[in-house]
Amino acid sequence: MTEFQKLLDRIPPADASAGELAQRRLDELTKPAGSLGRLEELARRLVEITGVCPPDVSHPVIFTLAADHGVVPEGVSAYPQIVTTQMVENFLRGGAAINVLARHAGARVVIADLGIRVPLTAHPSLRTFRIGAGTRNMSREPAMTREKALAGIDAGIALVESERSRGLDLIGTGEMGIGNTTAASAMVAVLTGATVEDVTGRGTGLDETGRRRKVEIIERALQVNAPDPTDALDVLAKIGGFEIAGLVGVALAGAAHRIPVIVDGFIATAAALAAVRLAPRARYCLLASHRSAEPGHRHALAALGLDPYLDLGMRLGEGTGAALCIDLARAAVKILTEMATFKSAGVSTSRQETSQT
Amino acid sequence: MTEFQKLLDRIPPADASAGELAQRRLDELTKPAGSLGRLEELARRLVEITGVCPPDVSHPVIFTLAADHGVVPEGVSAYPQIVTTQMVENFLRGGAAINVLARHAGARVVIADLGIRVPLTAHPSLRTFRIGAGTRNMSREPAMTREKALAGIDAGIALVESERSRGLDLIGTGEMGIGNTTAASAMVAVLTGATVEDVTGRGTGLDETGRRRKVEIIERALQVNAPDPTDALDVLAKIGGFEIAGLVGVALAGAAHRIPVIVDGFIATAAALAAVRLAPRARYCLLASHRSAEPGHRHALAALGLDPYLDLGMRLGEGTGAALCIDLARAAVKILTEMATFKSAGVSTSRQETSQT
Repeated sequence: MTEFQKLLDRIPPADASAGELAQRRLDELTKPAGSLGRLEELARRLVEITGVCPPDVSHPVIFTLAADHGVVPEGVSAYPQIVTTQMVENFLRGGAAINVLARHAGARVVIADLGIRVPLTAHPSLRTFRIGAGTRNMSREPAMTREKALAGIDAGIALVESERSRGLDLIGTGEMGIGNTTAASAMVAVLTGATVEDVTGRGTGLDETGRRRKVEIIERALQVNAPDPTDALDVLAKIGGFEIAGLVGVALAGAAHRIPVIVDGFIATAAALAAVRLAPRARYCLLASHRSAEPGHRHALAALGLDPYLDLGMRLGEGTGAALCIDLARAAVKILTEMATFKSAGVSTSRQETSQT
Repeated sequence: MTEFQKLLDRIPPADASAGELAQRRLDELTKPAGSLGRLEELARRLVEITGVCPPDVSHPVIFTLAADHGVVPEGVSAYPQIVTTQMVENFLRGGAAINVLARHAGARVVIADLGIRVPLTAHPSLRTFRIGAGTRNMSREPAMTREKALAGIDAGIALVESERSRGLDLIGTGEMGIGNTTAASAMVAVLTGATVEDVTGRGTGLDETGRRRKVEIIERALQVNAPDPTDALDVLAKIGGFEIAGLVGVALAGAAHRIPVIVDGFIATAAALAAVRLAPRARYCLLASHRSAEPGHRHALAALGLDPYLDLGMRLGEGTGAALCIDLARAAVKILTEMATFKSAGVSTSRQETSQT
């Protein structure tokens, strides 16, 4: 039995009574009821997920998982495949957008190699769970075997378990992998029933000709592999990626441990969708950080029933949207913990209670 | 000559060449061009406003101005007028939402009494520029004289000038005043030409009957006062508020000193609109923080040509949206200053430059 299978039974439901407690608290604070809008909703959801009011979000970790994609030589990306390796080096040196935004949010970043094509020499901060030297070309054969998909999920679970010992109470998901919008688009098309055309965008910089080529290649991958939409592991294996499998594991581990999982953009959401199809109860722990500029994202979000907190036209990945949203989550918790109540502050709550002398 | 009139000639244009420098920098960073979306746009705008790349945003200040409104006895608010005073006390004790979110953003909050009805005893942190004990009832007479409106503007300018000596490089605007969505709705209707019905919402908690009453009262105020839409000072005086006049001054002072002004929600945006009608060149320094749930906000934003960065369904005021956006502004600047370039990180920029060996 894999870590994954052991974990599925341990996923609890959301704690509705803790959520109600949070709502009562929010309604007592010195502001018109509900006037902080989605910040209040975020506070309540963090309480429902953790089961604790106020929740501790002082140890956020962004899991940025990297891997390569065998479909890249078909010409689906504006960048060469070696950029995956180069960007992992950049992550380790602290110079990428995710490093900057995670530092800004006070979050650790865990960089893991799930199977980049050209590996790096060992680095003290790089976690390695290499499932292979990139996936196979999904337009010609399955991206990976079912066993490798499970190994990827287990790697994500292992990453979360190891970070828990260092302190972990809020998860952000992120990824790096040249070509991985192609895998995510394919997965979202199959898992939501949307057309490939509808879910396929320009990734990190294709022109319209490039995008049409990407659509054709995804359609070919679906024909060649015929993934079973009712079997998310089949979908993940045949047309997914190692880093996507890893993020499925990260989400499931978060769900098992009542740790809120702030999902980044399109690729991370495709992974979250696969996680929920594998374990529907895992949905309770997911928060959508931002609305990606990638067109497939809204299909994945709709299938998950999630509404992102930010809409900044971002399309970078790495966990950058999750990092920005971590800051919002910390602000939401401070509303719960640091605001005065109407009673403690001596503020009148309605026209009826106080005369207007 | 008032401070206001002296200041108008000193408003510079945006620094387009500094903005181009910022854009070149953004395009060299290790991310696909434009992939951080509006975070990049925010970084560029901060550079254009300040004329400095990278801009310093290490001393943000939120100006939360309070005053009362003579129209409140007509029944336009769900809260009694004394709540303005009580909330100012709450601000001074640090227990309101703006205190929590400003601390979270590392911003100082300047609380000023521009004319609350029941004044507080002196408090070391309270700035007082009382123009009166609340405005007059605009549904029966002008809310204030033209001279008082100018005094309110001058008070806002004076607040900014005094904070500059303590370090001030980013301004957030905020307000507190029971009944001030009524004044803001009236001003936005007149300044944009929208109908009162279209710009009038439920404020902090009216029901639909209360909202309709509020519409009637605003319509009566417009009939009684006949403010001249081409004379923003006339509009501000007849149907505005002391705190709104103060925020006009804050925005104009920011414009004069190349300090970015992060505008909060509906009421702060109404003030920003009046400022731009008084001094069209002031527009260059304005950033819209969030989209308020108040329906009039989109009319004011459209008239200013501003698109908010956040859309969280908030409708609290105080500067809470500005506070959340300050954090985003700081993140945007860190992108400019802390990210590696393609060259420094040795990352390939396109398919053509590196073979995929």
